[in-house]
Parts: sequence; C-alpha cells; structure tokens
Amino acid sequence: MTDIVNLMSPFLNATQNVLQTMASTKAVPGPATGDVHSAPFGVVTGIIGMAGEKMTGNLIVSFDESSIIAIVSRMLTEEFLIINQDVIDAVGEITNMICGGAKRELAEQGLKFDMASPVVLSGENLGVQSTSKSHFIMVPFTTPEGRFMLETDLETKKR
Amino acid sequence: MTDIVNLMSPFLNATQNVLQTMASTKAVPGPATGDVHSAPFGVVTGIIGMAGEKMTGNLIVSFDESSIIAIVSRMLTEEFLIINQDVIDAVGEITNMICGGAKRELAEQGLKFDMASPVVLSGENLGVQSTSKSHFIMVPFTTPEGRFMLETDLETKKR
Repeated sequence: MTDIVNLMSPFLNATQNVLQTMASTKAVPGPATGDVHSAPFGVVTGIIGMAGEKMTGNLIVSFDESSIIAIVSRMLTEEFLIINQDVIDAVGEITNMICGGAKRELAEQGLKFDMASPVVLSGENLGVQSTSKSHFIMVPFTTPEGRFMLETDLETKKR
Repeated sequence: MTDIVNLMSPFLNATQNVLQTMASTKAVPGPATGDVHSAPFGVVTGIIGMAGEKMTGNLIVSFDESSIIAIVSRMLTEEFLIINQDVIDAVGEITNMICGGAKRELAEQGLKFDMASPVVLSGENLGVQSTSKSHFIMVPFTTPEGRFMLETDLETKKR
C-alpha cells in the first residue's frame, strides 16, 4: 500500500499545481478508492500511457462538463460554453502537464518512464474496464464549479 | 507519407498474425484514412500507449460486437454470447499482442519504444478526439463475422 501511496502522491501534487498555475483553480482531492469494475466517466477524458523499465501504467483524467468548461475558460481567459476543439486540446494539454509533473517527481525517486502522447475521448456512459491484470486507483477531485476524476493503474515491475 | 507507411505496416502485419494465430481469423485490411475529427468507435476498445526516445503514440483497436464475440470464442474455444470480463481481458490481450508484434518489427528498424499497459474501454457513441497536435491514421479491418478498426497517432521525434 505504501508503494501505491508513494506512486500516487506525485500525481495528486501535479494535479493541484497544474490547475492552480494554469487555471487559478483550487482542486481538492477526496479519498482514493480502488475498483476492479468499470468506472463512470465524465464527458471528456484524457488518457496518457506511461512506459519505463521499472514502471508501467496509464493516467486517466475525466472531467464533468461544468468543471472543464470553467477550467478551460480561466486557462485561456475566454468564456467557453460548449466542449469544442479548444477544450479538447486543453484536456490533452492538462493531462500531459499533470503526467509531466508527476514524471519529474518520480524521476527524483529513481522511477523513470517515458510518456505516450495523450488521447482525448468524449462521450457519456463510457466505461473503463479493468482487465484482470490491472487495478485502478481512483481519486475524485472537487473544484468550485464541478468534479473530475483522476485514475491510474500504475504498476512497478519487479526485476 | 513513406514514414507513416513504414510505421503502420508492422501494426497491420501484427494484427493479421495475432488474429490468425490466436483465433484462426482472417482479418483483411481496408484502405487507410486520416482523420482530424472524432472517430466512431466499436463497442469495446483497447488502447495502449507507446513511448520511446524516437517515437511516441497510441495504438487503438476498436471492435464491433459480432467481430469480437467471434474472435474471443475461437481464441478461448468457448462460445461467448455477450461482452463479459473474459472478452474484456481478451481485448486487452489482443491489443497488447498486436503492439508487441509491431514493437519487435520496428525495433529491427531501429525504432525502439516501451509499451504502457492496455486500457480497455466499453460503451457506444464514444469518440476519440484528435488534439490539434495529433493525427490519427485509421485502418478498417473486415473479418468473416464483423469489423474492427485499427488506429494510431504515431509520431517520430526529431532529435
């Protein structure tokens, strides 16, 4: 469990830093839960794969409509009303920045990995299905305007 | 363009090999198309991130219900009627094997990368949104029982 906490903590820090710095948004994490079943998603979701010699996994950041609209409106100092290409791009960018921040912190602990490019998914009623080999840790975040979910299926490789 | 063809070809080869070997299924590729907009998805979709010094991207394999039910039924020599955990696991496994096959072929060309763990998504009306920084190449495959789509947003890094 310590292992997972050590791995997750850089992602939580990076999430709060990125949203504060880029969008002046205070994001408050709730309690982490584990799930082996499908997870409910928001309306727009960034996924980024991580691959290294000692660690592998994915970072998934899934936003409800009100949270991402508010975040991107502040980030780009322009009022958005719908999820358009700018918002999609911003979700990719936010996912990338969170992962990049965690990557730097984990590298200091000796856990190096490379990042894939982010994929952005849209659509409701989308489920992430854990395979029998993976296990997701989910952390809900609350912002003044809405919620988003951070999920990872990090795994350290035994050598 | 040659670059993209050289990069795609190992994925097409691996797809045909994996389905033939694991599920005695002949999968015939159709013409590749590029898309900057959202792509329609099947009902179950495997995504795997790739990250290396010279190349980055994602492999997305998205199956319609009839194709994946038939493929997994043959692969596990057991008749499946619905998409259950075994089918979800098999989609993760198939995505992983296709990516692994392409990884070996690309390594011979000097393009090495590490693979993230596969994520499996379920749900209809799901869209992959290209960000302005990415560009997806999509190749439709036909099997005797149905169709699936292979998508990649591979990018070689200039050094």
